[in-house]
Amino acid sequence: MRSIENYRSEFVSYLEEKTHTKEPENLYAPITYILGLGGKRLRPVLTLLTSELFGSNCKEAMNAALAIEIFHNFSLVHDDIMDDAPLRRGKQTVHEKWDINTGILSGDAMLIMAYQLFENYPDEIFRKLAQLFSKTALEVCEGQQYDIDFELRDDVTIPEYLRMIEYKTAVLVGAAMKMGGIIAKASINDQDHIYEFGKNLGIAFQLQDDYLDAFGDPETFGKQVGGDIIENKKTILYLLALKLGNSKQKRGLLDLYSIQPQYPGDKVNTIKDTFISTGSEKQVKLEIQNYTQKAFEVLDLLKVSETKKTVLRKFGEGLMKREV
Amino acid sequence: MRSIENYRSEFVSYLEEKTHTKEPENLYAPITYILGLGGKRLRPVLTLLTSELFGSNCKEAMNAALAIEIFHNFSLVHDDIMDDAPLRRGKQTVHEKWDINTGILSGDAMLIMAYQLFENYPDEIFRKLAQLFSKTALEVCEGQQYDIDFELRDDVTIPEYLRMIEYKTAVLVGAAMKMGGIIAKASINDQDHIYEFGKNLGIAFQLQDDYLDAFGDPETFGKQVGGDIIENKKTILYLLALKLGNSKQKRGLLDLYSIQPQYPGDKVNTIKDTFISTGSEKQVKLEIQNYTQKAFEVLDLLKVSETKKTVLRKFGEGLMKREV
Repeated sequence: MRSIENYRSEFVSYLEEKTHTKEPENLYAPITYILGLGGKRLRPVLTLLTSELFGSNCKEAMNAALAIEIFHNFSLVHDDIMDDAPLRRGKQTVHEKWDINTGILSGDAMLIMAYQLFENYPDEIFRKLAQLFSKTALEVCEGQQYDIDFELRDDVTIPEYLRMIEYKTAVLVGAAMKMGGIIAKASINDQDHIYEFGKNLGIAFQLQDDYLDAFGDPETFGKQVGGDIIENKKTILYLLALKLGNSKQKRGLLDLYSIQPQYPGDKVNTIKDTFISTGSEKQVKLEIQNYTQKAFEVLDLLKVSETKKTVLRKFGEGLMKREV
Repeated sequence: MRSIENYRSEFVSYLEEKTHTKEPENLYAPITYILGLGGKRLRPVLTLLTSELFGSNCKEAMNAALAIEIFHNFSLVHDDIMDDAPLRRGKQTVHEKWDINTGILSGDAMLIMAYQLFENYPDEIFRKLAQLFSKTALEVCEGQQYDIDFELRDDVTIPEYLRMIEYKTAVLVGAAMKMGGIIAKASINDQDHIYEFGKNLGIAFQLQDDYLDAFGDPETFGKQVGGDIIENKKTILYLLALKLGNSKQKRGLLDLYSIQPQYPGDKVNTIKDTFISTGSEKQVKLEIQNYTQKAFEVLDLLKVSETKKTVLRKFGEGLMKREV
């Protein structure tokens, strides 16, 4: 099997080959733009890697990988409108560079273009891919809706939060891998296992994202450390601190989460202390290990060689060390 | 074959049976709302009618018909955001009743739900329906983009305008009918013919919409007569008047299309006079006849009984008399 880097460069070449700005330009130029902004291309790489894991050639999986990447970028374009985000990967978001209407319409076109890529497969595979894709895409919409709802609720439970990140982020990682399995005609069991591997790793990754946003190294974490706290974002750290804290800790946290000071340094530090003193920080680390472990345990069930399992384990470890 | 009214009531029962507001409620309630607003349900009725025309039972076509109706409503929800429209079928639009973000996300979910309905068909039919649907849906996006682009251009040609309405409106009518043909396993030729019938009738209908907006009977035309003129909308009447008019008529029209008077009565009347004096009004009537004729000529090529062709002709005539 190839290296992650090799899958990535093969994928990027294919993406560039397939992305043209057709007419009407105002519909397709934003699509070329967002797809060209880069990123780690982890989801399509996982589709390619999984297809070879189950004995296919990654060229066979290229169109499904591209569908996954186009869908992911569709969701970024629409989410960025909803979040009123000015920047994406350090560049202007589509609705900033063009306008909201362009973001809506180009996003819609991307969702449809993703489906069209499955047309490159025979009837039976086409159906399986499109069906998994629809189920996953609808879950991503539901996850986004839960995320929006949670901003206005003050009684979000931990299971609800976990379901939200599962839907919003993790199922797409699972589906990206399962598509590789479908194309390689892996057994149904293996398809299900690899989906669970991707999904649990996706949850672990997303929980770690919450963790690093508060406790990450400012040198290596891509975003502003403390950003979630500054924005009063209800992350897993916050929800667990409220659950585990005594009444004084809870009151302090609720108070600080009701203000947005101009110089948020003190607020960030106090809240980080609360995350530690309530035991939330420790508990989140355990949850991350938990889901990573869950992902790795599924590997035992896979009917592939130990060498191949090692590739997946290495990938998972690299991902969680943010090295991939 | 059944009456249009019968297809409509069968369809509405099925739609009501299938539309539940699931969790998360803020995602699905707007979908139930927009699908429940009513309307003539012409597109799904055409899918059902066509399936029986080619010898199937309309129950077989119900899921495809519902997909078409959900897609149509998806496009209304997103278009209404883009047009900042407060009302749809006399009720609040989704983004007015909820907010823009809800309109975007619920619309996205509807597009995916439309695809899921094709999963009720066997592999081969599933593929044909999904493929036609994707092609059509992307054309609808392109049509919407051309429509937006045209608002900012002053050199739109008649063929460009015709392509815009073909994509934005007419291809979905063609596709709705072709889906009935696919499900009934009509010959490829018959599928193509029925698509052309629907498409040309759709163009004629849309041109007539432009016409009636200026020259319709205020008693029977659903919208405010003169609305397009008041909004300086570049309809076929406007474009043909500019093409056919002498320099004085053109200048007058361009001047009036650059203002939005508080009391637009005089403006509307002057422009309607210009549409008549330039010959545009007459020419548009000819174009409408032309496309209606084109649709009816295709019927001669269909390999179905004369009785069935009469049903289609009656439907087309009723539609153009706005009686369906």
